[in-house]
Formats: sequence, C-alpha cells, structure tokens
Amino acid sequence: MKIALCQINPIIGNLDYNKDKIIKGYGNGINEKVDLVIFPELALVGYPPLDLVEKSEFRKAVNKKINELAKITGDVGLLFGAITEDDDRIGTNIHNSAVLCYKGKVQFIQPKSLIPNYDVFDEMRYFEPAKEVFVHKFKGEKLGISVCEDIWNDADYWYKRRYYVDPVETLKKKGATVFINISASPYSYGKRKERLEMLTILCKQDKLPLAYVCCVGVQTDLVFDGGSMCLDKKGKLVQLGKTYEEDFFLFDTEKDKEIKVHVEKSFEEEVLASLIYGVKEYFEKMKFKKAVVGLSGGLDSAMVTYIAVEALGKENVHVVLMPSKYSSRGSLTDSEKLIKNLGISSDNVSIQPVVDETISQLTPKFKQKLGKLTGENIQARIRGVYLMAFSNNDNYLVLTTGNKSELAVGYCTLYGDMSGSLAVIADVYKSDLYKIANFINREKEIIPKEIILKPPSAELSPNQKDQDDLPQYELLDRILKMYLEENKEYDEINSIIKNEKVVKKVLRMVDINEFKRRQAAPALRVSKKAFGYGRRYPIVQGWRT
Amino acid sequence: MKIALCQINPIIGNLDYNKDKIIKGYGNGINEKVDLVIFPELALVGYPPLDLVEKSEFRKAVNKKINELAKITGDVGLLFGAITEDDDRIGTNIHNSAVLCYKGKVQFIQPKSLIPNYDVFDEMRYFEPAKEVFVHKFKGEKLGISVCEDIWNDADYWYKRRYYVDPVETLKKKGATVFINISASPYSYGKRKERLEMLTILCKQDKLPLAYVCCVGVQTDLVFDGGSMCLDKKGKLVQLGKTYEEDFFLFDTEKDKEIKVHVEKSFEEEVLASLIYGVKEYFEKMKFKKAVVGLSGGLDSAMVTYIAVEALGKENVHVVLMPSKYSSRGSLTDSEKLIKNLGISSDNVSIQPVVDETISQLTPKFKQKLGKLTGENIQARIRGVYLMAFSNNDNYLVLTTGNKSELAVGYCTLYGDMSGSLAVIADVYKSDLYKIANFINREKEIIPKEIILKPPSAELSPNQKDQDDLPQYELLDRILKMYLEENKEYDEINSIIKNEKVVKKVLRMVDINEFKRRQAAPALRVSKKAFGYGRRYPIVQGWRT
Repeated sequence: MKIALCQINPIIGNLDYNKDKIIKGYGNGINEKVDLVIFPELALVGYPPLDLVEKSEFRKAVNKKINELAKITGDVGLLFGAITEDDDRIGTNIHNSAVLCYKGKVQFIQPKSLIPNYDVFDEMRYFEPAKEVFVHKFKGEKLGISVCEDIWNDADYWYKRRYYVDPVETLKKKGATVFINISASPYSYGKRKERLEMLTILCKQDKLPLAYVCCVGVQTDLVFDGGSMCLDKKGKLVQLGKTYEEDFFLFDTEKDKEIKVHVEKSFEEEVLASLIYGVKEYFEKMKFKKAVVGLSGGLDSAMVTYIAVEALGKENVHVVLMPSKYSSRGSLTDSEKLIKNLGISSDNVSIQPVVDETISQLTPKFKQKLGKLTGENIQARIRGVYLMAFSNNDNYLVLTTGNKSELAVGYCTLYGDMSGSLAVIADVYKSDLYKIANFINREKEIIPKEIILKPPSAELSPNQKDQDDLPQYELLDRILKMYLEENKEYDEINSIIKNEKVVKKVLRMVDINEFKRRQAAPALRVSKKAFGYGRRYPIVQGWRT
Repeated sequence: MKIALCQINPIIGNLDYNKDKIIKGYGNGINEKVDLVIFPELALVGYPPLDLVEKSEFRKAVNKKINELAKITGDVGLLFGAITEDDDRIGTNIHNSAVLCYKGKVQFIQPKSLIPNYDVFDEMRYFEPAKEVFVHKFKGEKLGISVCEDIWNDADYWYKRRYYVDPVETLKKKGATVFINISASPYSYGKRKERLEMLTILCKQDKLPLAYVCCVGVQTDLVFDGGSMCLDKKGKLVQLGKTYEEDFFLFDTEKDKEIKVHVEKSFEEEVLASLIYGVKEYFEKMKFKKAVVGLSGGLDSAMVTYIAVEALGKENVHVVLMPSKYSSRGSLTDSEKLIKNLGISSDNVSIQPVVDETISQLTPKFKQKLGKLTGENIQARIRGVYLMAFSNNDNYLVLTTGNKSELAVGYCTLYGDMSGSLAVIADVYKSDLYKIANFINREKEIIPKEIILKPPSAELSPNQKDQDDLPQYELLDRILKMYLEENKEYDEINSIIKNEKVVKKVLRMVDINEFKRRQAAPALRVSKKAFGYGRRYPIVQGWRT
C-alpha cells in the first residue's frame, strides 16, 4: 500500500484554512498515485481546541467541513482527524476521531479510545472514548487506524500503564495488516527518542508496518516539532518527516528500506530550535511582526534577543536598554556588543527619573519607611511600563526574559520583568541556558563571553548578585528538577542533596510563589513539566510550607 | 440512626490542621451520642488538591493520617473523605474516597464512581472511578455511601446525563436503608436550589433518607458556601447547615420533621455574601490582614472597597486615590464620600508627575507619535505600580476592581488595573453590580448615589465614557451571558439581539482578549461559568475571528 503522509500546521479553529491544507495535500497524494493520504489528529480543527469543542455551532461547522471534504474524494482514501458526535444522550457525545473518506463519502470513523488527561492534556473534559475499535478493509489491506494516545499503552513497553484497554492490540487481533496512527504529540526534550523506541517495539512485536503522522506548529505554549515516522514490519525506521516545518512524503508499506538517522539531537540544539520555532510561530499566528526585549546585560535577555532574531529576523527585533543608577558599566557595554553582533536596533532610556519621581511621590504616604523590596520592584515595574509602552505605541510584542529557575522560586517581579506576551525561556533552567549559550557560540562569539561569564545579577540594588539570595544555580536546578520534573519530595531530595536548609528553602520558595506563576505569560514548553496548564497547584495550600 | 454532620473548612494540603478538625468533630459527635459522624469529600486533604495528588509523599502522608484517625475510633462511626490508592499498575491507582472507620480500624472504603471533569473540575486527571459500589452494614442499617458527583446522575432528574452508571441506583438496589453523600460542591448562583431539587427527587423516588454533608470555605477562587442538608424518605428537607461558616448538627433519620426554609436567597444577597466570604477567607488562608484598593470614583472600586470592609473590617482596608489630569472633580468628592461612609483610611497621590516623566522619557524614542492607547495604558500601569508599592511596603494585598463585562471584552489594562492578588468582582457583570449596589443601599446610602448614577468612565482621556467604546452595559451583558454562560454562538445570539454589528464586535472582543485573561488574577467564582480554570480557550485561534 502506498500512503502519503501530510504533516501539516493547522490553525486552531480556522476550519477553512485547515480544510484548504487538507484539500491541497490530498491533491498532492493523487498526483503521486498513492492509495491513501493521511493527516494528523484533529487536523481539521487544530490541536488542542480546548473549550471550542463545547460550542455546538463550532461542532456543526466541523461536521459541515467533514462532509465537504468527503465530497471531493475519489478512489484515493483521505484520512484526517476531526471532531465527531454520537447521540446517546449520555456523556459528552463528542469524539476525537479519525475520519476516512473515499468515493465521495465518509466511509469509516474511528474515535480515539484512550483519552489523555494528564499534564497539558485535558481531553476527558471534551471527548468520550470509542465504544469499540474496528479494522477497515481498503484496497486489499485491513487498516488498523488509531489516534495518538491509542498507541501509547503497549503492555510490553510500559511498566505501569495508564489504561485498561489496548486498542492497537485489538486492531491486531481483528486482523489489521497496516497500522496507521494520527497524532498531535507536543514536543519536550526526550520525546522523539521515546516515540521511536515505543513504536519500534510495537511494530516488531506485531509484525506490521506503521505510518505515524503528526502535526507541526506551535499552539500558544505547545510546540509540535513534527518528525512523522514510518516503520516497516520489523520495526525499522524507513521514513522520517522534517522537524519544525510542514512536510509531505510517501510510504510504501512493502518496499521502503531502513534509514539510519538519529531522531534526537543534542539537548542544546533541539531545545534552541524549538524555542526559535516557538517564537516564529507565535508571531505568525498572532499576526505580529516585531518583538521588543528589555536588554539588561545579563544572559537571559541576551538569549531571548538571540532567539527572537533567529525567529523573526534582525530587522524585526528591537531592544531597549533601561539602566538605573544600579546598572553596572558592564551591563551597557556588554549589551552594546550583543546589539552589534546581532545587528539590531536599540534604544537606551533611563528609568531613573521615573523611579525617583515615583519614590518621591509615594514615600511620604507609606506607613513604613521605604523597603528594599519596594524599591527593587518599582524599578522592575517601571521597566515593565516602558516596554509595554513601546509595545502599545510601535506595535511590538514584548517577550519576557525570565528563566525556569527564577520563575520556580519567584525570583522575578509580577507586572515588572514578568510583563509580556510570551515567556520564551521560562521552561529552561538557568544552568541549561549556559549550555545553550555555549552551543550558540560554538563557531564564533555571538553571545558576548562577558555576558556568559559574569555572575548573574538583577542589578536592582548596589552590588546585588543572584547568589546572595539563591543557592548556586547548578545546585538550585538539581533540586528544582527533582521537585518539578520528577515529582520527588523533600525527604527523597534531601537524601540526595544532603543539605536540609537549602532544600527546604527552595521547596518552600517554589510553593509560595504559585500566585506569581498564575499570572505569568504563557511559556514555551520544552520539558516534560513546564509551568502553565500542565502543572496545577493551589495558590493557597498548606502542604509542608 | 443518629448522624452528626460536620461541615468543616479544611486547608488544602494541611493534613494536621484538617485531621485536628476531624478529631474535634468526632469528639463532639460522641458527646451527642450519635451512631455516626460524617465529614465532607476530601475533608482530610482539602478540595481541590490539584496536582498535590500526584506527589507520592503527599499520598503517603494522607494514608498515615487516615490510619491515625482510624485508631482513635470506638463504636461510633467516623466517615470522612480522603485519597486512597489501589495497586493494579493500571491507571492512576488513586481514588477520591469515603473512608469509614470504627473500632480502631478502617472498616470500609467507598471510592467515588463518577469523576467530574468539566468546568473547574479536573478530577479525571487524578482519580480513577470506583470499580464497584457496596452498601455497608452498620448498627442495623445498610449505609449507601456516595461521594459528591455520584449523586448527580439521576436518570429522573437529568434529561442528558454525563455518565453511563448511576451508583446511587446501585446502592438502592443493593439494599441501602440510608443514603450518605459527602461533597465539596462549589458555589455558583442557582446551585443551592438545584442541589435541593435534585436531592428531593432522589429521596422521594428511592424512599430513603439522605445526609448530605459538604465543606465550607474558599479555596483561592472557589467559594464553598456550606448549606449541608438532610432529607427524610419523603424527600422533605429536615435539616439545613449554615452558610459561609463551619457547622455541626445532628440528623435523626427516623424522627426529624420537615423544616420550611428557602435555601436560595436573592441574587444580590447571595452573591454579595459569597464575595465577602471569598475575600475574608482568601486573606485568612494567605495570612494577610490588610487590603489596599485603588479608588477611582467609579462603581467597581467602590464595590470592591465595600466588600473588603465587610470582609476584613474597616481598620484593615486602605484606599488610594490616584488622580490624573483627566480625573473629574466628582471622582474625588464621590470617593471622599465613600471613604467617610465606610470609615476607612485613604491616601491621595497624583500619578500625573510620574506619567508626565514617563511620557517625556519615552516619546523621543517612539517610532510613531504618542498614541491615545499608549497614553491611557501608561496611566493605568503607573497606578498599578503605585498600588503594588503600597502592597510591598506596607504589607497589603491589592484587590483588583475589574468586573466581568470589562474582563470579557478586554476593557482593562494588563499590569495596570488588572494588577493584584484577587479579582473580587471579576465574575459579576456590570449590570448586576448596579443591582448589588442598590441592595447594599437598601436601608441607607453606603455606596454614594452619585457613584451609582454617574456614567461609567475609565477617565483615561478627556470626557471619556465607557459607552463611547462599548455597547450599553445592559445590552453588552445580555450578549455576554449568552456567549459565555449559555455557550450560544453568533447566529443564535443575533437571532435574539438582532444587531449584527454589535454582536459581532462583542464576540470578537471576547475572543481576541484571551491573552489578557490568561494573566489575570484569580477571580472569585459566583456564576456557572467564570473566567479562570473553568473556561479554557486557546490564546491563538481562528474560529470566527
């Protein structure tokens, strides 16, 4: 069987746009004389559609588009993901389905059986599981069609399974001769390798070829990196889609030969590429061209600026230096070096007169004398006011520059440096940012070495250093990774770190700063556990604090 | 059977605190010579615990406390909600259970069968449904124990059911002689009446008495209003718990007589009480005493100030007047009148010098000439800087003053008037705020009538009125209620409103302002569909925009 895989980038909710992509891909498949053209999970709708699914007019419109798509089909099969409905008056009656059309009609609908509802996934909120799975006879094959998560419950791969049923096993039992999985699997580092490993074991054991097509694109904070795959019945990788762009390629289930590639790149390369893609896509889908970044002279803002330049082009990135009396000479010269290296435009506007005026207005009114934190936050917030004014006036989106370590412990100012549309590096720990910076500089110095080498400082007080308030970032990040990503708790973490005071302090800082994160900008997700919808903690809670 | 109902207010995650409450209630029950003492859903844990459930050390600690509680029990039964685990290595293995202890042991565990996963509920993320339900023989009765949602799927009450099974029906079939339901049902207007109606039909039909115990308290944005209930086997209400406070009361399943009360109050009374309780509780649980509010002279900030005074006491509410050159004379005099009526402290600090300085710093740097929106937002944001400085320096929490109508259409400034810890009235439409204001003034004028009568204005430009930019609030709110609460879409709304241009404009404003709401402060929930976790839309999407 000859299958065309269409790895497309849908816009959530824009049914006409997505439908046109499907029509185009189907046409390309016909030109290539394939038997079947396949598209990702919810290709017609965009993933994740979230509460749009709850709108009945939206679902009606989806249904209409499904029928319009079916009408254009001839002998060649068209398989794509969409929302379908049943009508038994119990449950949501809504399904996340694979829809197969040919000869002018919807011929077969296979709803998703396994409905993910963890981390960033909320699908039980919307979708009912399939009542049953079927194979579908088509052009001499029996298609075993599944949707994303359906393929992620193999008893041979997982020690602990999420679900009681294994729809793919059922498809095999019902005589499937080809597996097709349509997906929308968001990126996190390590995921590519995991996907391939899991699919390899599955194909090898079931002795069936697999076409796995996923989407590409960025949906607010979720990065979909592409990399659709085809495996032969021995579990060998025979086709691999591009990453970070749409792709169209063919799979001959009988003839294709093994290819030797590493699906996974280095941490630095992969995460950097994902962040660049994240910024590029966010701007395109929000219909903005230009970004503004507050450049402090530190690593974080330098990295965000570099990423923005790679994503949007140097002509579309503007930086603003906003020094105060606490800004070091170095913070200006280092920033200037970066500006030169990147070839971008900049402004330099002191915050000092406005900060001074604010303090002189407020100090007489305060009950207590002006506190250190008050003064620091005023500086950060006036910078926020400046950047947002540039945004409002000259049509930039503000990129926030906080990293994951800072956001975790609340070492950031709400309505100050946290102000902005998109948090570019908020899912990257500070210690990992150094690695990525060195990766960027691997051939020539782009991020000035002074910026990489200087001790991190918010420069909100005289001679302030991050490490006056926080543990060394290497240590802090080790603790944070265990706490946030590995769900370890105090006892276990301390048995590894062996520093009661520091571990307690860090965990407490994470817990009490939930209120800040609740108001943070969406953060591009590149780890298995990012702040945002994937991590939900009460603001008010008393567990070990 | 004699049952003591303990309507408690747990702190999420504070197991010691919650355990102590359970021990105390159990002791009170023993003193009253009851057979059984019952506590709400997840009473030991607090509801909703969210991702705390995913921490294995947390679950271990819960298990330890369950066993400690079991040990203190004698002949009198103790029933409370907690997290329990099974170990079949499939699924989460975690349950939201009712735990029954007596004679020193856990004697019976009934996991919840129906796991809500809509609106603000994310329980499928954590909890597996019960594999089976059982009645438990205890002191001559067969207890039919269910957890919250379990009782909300009655085929006689609902036209469209959420779930395939009805655990309460099963309990009846298995011979239950008493129903017990432990709940944590968050408040929204209309919910009290709905609860009573549904429970009445259930008891009447099954001819069994019911003890329904729910929690009270506020968990960040969710208000739990109390009002536990007991119904006799004819479905008559025989006991009713207090609202907005803990309660302890007895229920004799045989002897109690019908009481005649209205569980529901007027919209104004109920919502106002819920908001006051929300503020009071948020401060208590966050361990803050004092609030600061920016008083503009308009209705919203006046209402928030009044609510804060009722919640925290007048000595704990401080207001700041922050006039600019666009502030009307009235805005000051009206504010002063309110300050006098409420007997609170105030400051008056002009924002003008700081705004002027900001504009003079930035204007030379802008590419385009200073825009109207830029100037307006700078004013709003400098006010935000001021209020946050009061908060940082003098230990206040900032209450935000935006209403639901504004937040819906984005008529508010991120990092400006949206800055603060808690959005007090962000789930109340402007037109409903007028009703509540008149209710407050029903005996004497507390909210000055000038504030109620004046045309709403943000006063960010000369002679600005909200109605220059927005439809009249009555019309706007009608459209918003249909769109937000009733999930109606353009076609249906316009068939009622018959004003294409206005309806399109409003819907579009709602859609494109998702990015603002994503960074909004948590909003006290008093409607069936509040902004926040209960409403999840993509920031970037193309449905009808």
